[in-house]
Amino acid sequence: MAKAETVIGLVEDTRHKLMQVSTATLTTALFKRGFRNVFLQGLCRLKPGENMVGGAFTLRYIPAREDLDVLASFEDHSHAQRKGVEECPDGAVFVIDSRGDASAASAGCILAARLQARGCRGIVTDGGFRDTPDIAALGMPAFHSRPSAPTNLIKHHAVAINDPIACGGVSVFPGDVMVADNEGVVCIPRHLADDVAGEAAEMTQFEDFVLEMVKEGASIFGLYPPTDPETMTLFSEWKRNRKT
Amino acid sequence: MAKAETVIGLVEDTRHKLMQVSTATLTTALFKRGFRNVFLQGLCRLKPGENMVGGAFTLRYIPAREDLDVLASFEDHSHAQRKGVEECPDGAVFVIDSRGDASAASAGCILAARLQARGCRGIVTDGGFRDTPDIAALGMPAFHSRPSAPTNLIKHHAVAINDPIACGGVSVFPGDVMVADNEGVVCIPRHLADDVAGEAAEMTQFEDFVLEMVKEGASIFGLYPPTDPETMTLFSEWKRNRKT
Amino acid sequence: MAKAETVIGLVEDTRHKLMQVSTATLTTALFKRGFRNVFLQGLCRLKPGENMVGGAFTLRYIPAREDLDVLASFEDHSHAQRKGVEECPDGAVFVIDSRGDASAASAGCILAARLQARGCRGIVTDGGFRDTPDIAALGMPAFHSRPSAPTNLIKHHAVAINDPIACGGVSVFPGDVMVADNEGVVCIPRHLADDVAGEAAEMTQFEDFVLEMVKEGASIFGLYPPTDPETMTLFSEWKRNRKT
Amino acid sequence: MAKAETVIGLVEDTRHKLMQVSTATLTTALFKRGFRNVFLQGLCRLKPGENMVGGAFTLRYIPAREDLDVLASFEDHSHAQRKGVEECPDGAVFVIDSRGDASAASAGCILAARLQARGCRGIVTDGGFRDTPDIAALGMPAFHSRPSAPTNLIKHHAVAINDPIACGGVSVFPGDVMVADNEGVVCIPRHLADDVAGEAAEMTQFEDFVLEMVKEGASIFGLYPPTDPETMTLFSEWKRNRKT
Amino acid sequence: MAKAETVIGLVEDTRHKLMQVSTATLTTALFKRGFRNVFLQGLCRLKPGENMVGGAFTLRYIPAREDLDVLASFEDHSHAQRKGVEECPDGAVFVIDSRGDASAASAGCILAARLQARGCRGIVTDGGFRDTPDIAALGMPAFHSRPSAPTNLIKHHAVAINDPIACGGVSVFPGDVMVADNEGVVCIPRHLADDVAGEAAEMTQFEDFVLEMVKEGASIFGLYPPTDPETMTLFSEWKRNRKT
Amino acid sequence: MAKAETVIGLVEDTRHKLMQVSTATLTTALFKRGFRNVFLQGLCRLKPGENMVGGAFTLRYIPAREDLDVLASFEDHSHAQRKGVEECPDGAVFVIDSRGDASAASAGCILAARLQARGCRGIVTDGGFRDTPDIAALGMPAFHSRPSAPTNLIKHHAVAINDPIACGGVSVFPGDVMVADNEGVVCIPRHLADDVAGEAAEMTQFEDFVLEMVKEGASIFGLYPPTDPETMTLFSEWKRNRKT
Repeated sequence: MAKAETVIGLVEDTRHKLMQVSTATLTTALFKRGFRNVFLQGLCRLKPGENMVGGAFTLRYIPAREDLDVLASFEDHSHAQRKGVEECPDGAVFVIDSRGDASAASAGCILAARLQARGCRGIVTDGGFRDTPDIAALGMPAFHSRPSAPTNLIKHHAVAINDPIACGGVSVFPGDVMVADNEGVVCIPRHLADDVAGEAAEMTQFEDFVLEMVKEGASIFGLYPPTDPETMTLFSEWKRNRKT
Repeated sequence: MAKAETVIGLVEDTRHKLMQVSTATLTTALFKRGFRNVFLQGLCRLKPGENMVGGAFTLRYIPAREDLDVLASFEDHSHAQRKGVEECPDGAVFVIDSRGDASAASAGCILAARLQARGCRGIVTDGGFRDTPDIAALGMPAFHSRPSAPTNLIKHHAVAINDPIACGGVSVFPGDVMVADNEGVVCIPRHLADDVAGEAAEMTQFEDFVLEMVKEGASIFGLYPPTDPETMTLFSEWKRNRKT
Repeated sequence: MAKAETVIGLVEDTRHKLMQVSTATLTTALFKRGFRNVFLQGLCRLKPGENMVGGAFTLRYIPAREDLDVLASFEDHSHAQRKGVEECPDGAVFVIDSRGDASAASAGCILAARLQARGCRGIVTDGGFRDTPDIAALGMPAFHSRPSAPTNLIKHHAVAINDPIACGGVSVFPGDVMVADNEGVVCIPRHLADDVAGEAAEMTQFEDFVLEMVKEGASIFGLYPPTDPETMTLFSEWKRNRKT
Repeated sequence: MAKAETVIGLVEDTRHKLMQVSTATLTTALFKRGFRNVFLQGLCRLKPGENMVGGAFTLRYIPAREDLDVLASFEDHSHAQRKGVEECPDGAVFVIDSRGDASAASAGCILAARLQARGCRGIVTDGGFRDTPDIAALGMPAFHSRPSAPTNLIKHHAVAINDPIACGGVSVFPGDVMVADNEGVVCIPRHLADDVAGEAAEMTQFEDFVLEMVKEGASIFGLYPPTDPETMTLFSEWKRNRKT
Repeated sequence: MAKAETVIGLVEDTRHKLMQVSTATLTTALFKRGFRNVFLQGLCRLKPGENMVGGAFTLRYIPAREDLDVLASFEDHSHAQRKGVEECPDGAVFVIDSRGDASAASAGCILAARLQARGCRGIVTDGGFRDTPDIAALGMPAFHSRPSAPTNLIKHHAVAINDPIACGGVSVFPGDVMVADNEGVVCIPRHLADDVAGEAAEMTQFEDFVLEMVKEGASIFGLYPPTDPETMTLFSEWKRNRKT
Repeated sequence: MAKAETVIGLVEDTRHKLMQVSTATLTTALFKRGFRNVFLQGLCRLKPGENMVGGAFTLRYIPAREDLDVLASFEDHSHAQRKGVEECPDGAVFVIDSRGDASAASAGCILAARLQARGCRGIVTDGGFRDTPDIAALGMPAFHSRPSAPTNLIKHHAVAINDPIACGGVSVFPGDVMVADNEGVVCIPRHLADDVAGEAAEMTQFEDFVLEMVKEGASIFGLYPPTDPETMTLFSEWKRNRKT
């Protein structure tokens, strides 16, 4: 477990910054570094709330097989879904590769509640959850494509934990930093997390300034991007005023 | 009408139980009986509320034909959509096979209001409704895939009432028991309704117990499923305490 | 700009009527005139509100090209997206052809805020917006298919403003009258706007009457459509009573 | 059976003409009469050959149900699929509504061979056939979306014969005239068959003339459509020469 | 390698039978045993030919990541795609999980040729191949969804060999027996291969008999399924005659 | 026309090389230059043949509108589709943006024949052609997604010629160099054509060598890519032998 904890943990300053920035800003910071495919496509959040930040702990499903995926299979403590839930480390985000198939549930409220009790920071699938009103009520960030009542046994065979996976069309390696706001989920390759968090925090400040100017009637020309030298002068001033 | 009433009606105890259970629990109870395809895929509820329970009364659409599907066709009292609305029995759920096509409306607020006035318990389509803010305001449970303003004549020809149909990828026979919560809609083959309702009610109680344990910090191992014999002892105790 | 203003403007009576009618009613009025494809498919509104009414001002995207769609491209005042935002006339609706691709953003909050400041009446894309919680907070009507955080450079190359475009599967010519309610968006060919607005306003009154009758228990036969001559007598009376 | 035969049969002159024209020409002739949705979308022919012409005899599937769709169900002579095959009249085209689902077979070679032996002119599904190399070898025109080996019981419940159905997104009423070439299948409303066949035959002759002119270097301006009066003169001449 | 060879190998009698039966027949034999999802959906064969039979050796892709999936990555002998090709045992079928994404190639002709040289019996992906005319010319059975020229680096990151995978919506465990004809590919769970091969071979003989009867004019009633006792008598006779 | 000719024309050496290379090789050469999206997705060739090479001349469709898209519209010489066909310069490839909608034809045989007569090198759409057996017979390279008999008026409004467009998910600017083989179509940004052609021709030679080695039993390790220094020595020798 200690090993997993290491992979999952984040520098506190990075976590703090990632709690304040939007997924939109993060995708731009990653685009600058050559990454075009970091936003998990087609997912929505069960209930709005604060950002979700944590290292990825993964579960991989393949299609169910009728002889393997029977109710009795849950009795086995090595069943990958149940084992994954009981081993997911404190501070992690539980990310499920459901092959984009929401015709049966990826997980339900009991497993979500157990993950929350273990310190999990959020749960993400590119399939669907069941018991969604109850999961929403838990308060833990949860992202999926649509509600799906049928038991996972009907379509999903839990085959491995902490494999590199696909989720929402994005590759997720165990330990990658998952960040979400009310718009969706971004996967930041682990080695870039500190760097990207720093840049995104700065960009956020500038965008706050720009939005304020625009709401007051400014044209975007020269302001966004700041090709007019005066823009940066105004921004410096704005920052000074804001602090005091 | 009497005949239809017979098909539609439910034993009061069954109805009562089905009003209290989730579609997730029902799909598991049906999975135990070998049914894998009972949850109508891709539908959402216009407005959260109590469960919907009722026997299916069906309307079947095929693609529109320009010479048949003209505004004047609604003047005919034998027009299947209008006839269906005026014949739908008290206690039924009105289920529409729209071939999953939401590019034109399956029905609008006036028909929904008429169904409600006639005692209909809910309306379900795998297409889309128009006037959705108004239908939501009626309070009657309504499930569709997405709002769709265009008149049904543009895409749908109402061809028959009370045919066995497909809806959301599930077969629905007239009289099958439609149950919905805020997550979606399940179709229970009529002959299984009493049996499934009973089992689902019991499962619900156990799952309530499990969720409480998990929220208090219990591991799912041994508890869910209850492979540890102590689990059932605790559950019996929990039930006793709950009653008093 | 004067030229654009001419195209965008609406007779006040027409605008007033279109603010009161539903997109459902408009599609029926257009169906009577032979138009079957006027409702933009698959879009949803960020936040419920009053109707949106305005002439279309368009932006056309084609797929991004890696050598053209770089962050520096925004520095150019002739960049079609930025230019479009700064030229969109007062009273217009900004309509974006994103080829139905919501895997990257069509626009974000800063551009939406600038459009609002310029008098724009709403923003529509068949892709997705980024910063959606912030755009929702602006209050300006906004319609898209789903939230999409990634910068538009990843998938979209802004190629032209005020071209005739496709949006949501519907052709939109600059100046066409875009009307939206909480259900979605309809595109009315400009030359039909006054005529359609008039008829829709009348239909709305009749449908209000019908809905009231139905809620009071009336059958739809003879009432909707009004094949029973008494219906129109009752309607006249209802209108008289309503006015007083 | 006699009744069915009446519905299926075609005037010999009409059949003869429909054997010579293309589905492209037929869709244009139907477009002139206001029909926009007559070409079955997404189907392909197993093996090129002569045109297929015949009245529609239909089979309707809904989703399979595990308790009904078992191998033993085929033993029942009233099973709709088997009954349909044994009742399909001489001269008919067997058209199957598979809800566009090709994940299990609509039919296989044995049923196709039986239909052929009974005088059936072709077989059409918007799902998939199994045993496709063998069906192709039979020589009878066969159209589907893609090969699909799994037995129909896995996904399809045969529920009715000779219902009006949807196939490939088009409404097909029993007796409608199905015409196919190597490009696909058109459904002609029965009452229009003679009229459309006549016009299409004439259009075909003109298009043959146009194609010959174009191959010889003529511009399409004035020729196609024949806005230049000389075009029709040349066409008359061409027809005279062709006959001799 | 020895270990892999054990998993891949087949009893010669089983292989022989599987070379003679159709995927349609195999799906029915598996349906009898409760398996509904064994046919890889949406794949087609590059070029018709004899059956393909062999144990599955798998390659798993996840979405590409720009910093990992560069041309230089192929220089590494531990690159999963290249390693997989060089380790695929004699007699195996190479099965690739491409997440159903054919927008970049799963493999091209050079790798296919190398697999063939190593004794591989076929190559299967639920993505697309590049160099398809050349792969077709190799003669080795190859199944994919559609041709796709772009290098795999654009969309696919090769992450593991011999993981259990999803392919065409079916779970494939290493060593499962892949059988294909000109219609598509079936995955037989390894422990069932001998049993299923035996039954399918017998069914094939009976279906050959039925088809002959049907072509000679027999009704399917009583014959298929053989509810008429005389059918089996005729079949016995037919078998005797055939042998001599 | 002179202007168009300039844009369309190619250096003879470039054309010659592009006639000999595969689209697979071209996508790799473009990937090296940072281009990931150059292969038109989902298209197939009507009939195998030699490569297609030419500068893009484009036609753009938006959705049809019932009042504009009537048969009489073809009588107008300024109708964009007809004008495009009559203005397409010698040596060009005619590329149509059909928004990926193949439910009505993008063009038919008469227009294709006229294009061929005018020296057009090929015709490409991301919709479907009608009269496909006849277009195939013309011999001119033609690429589409699937056959579609209905007249384009049903779904497509021809709105502009020589606009930058989207086709098969790729941006195509007028004059870009379209190259196709039997696998599909690649769009090369014009300014890269000479450079890419040169590199692709060299790569092709090396790949021919590699394939020969592999067929003779060589491992891909060290050979492909040529990390073993001996590989290039062998390749030089192979080239010398081949020339003589």
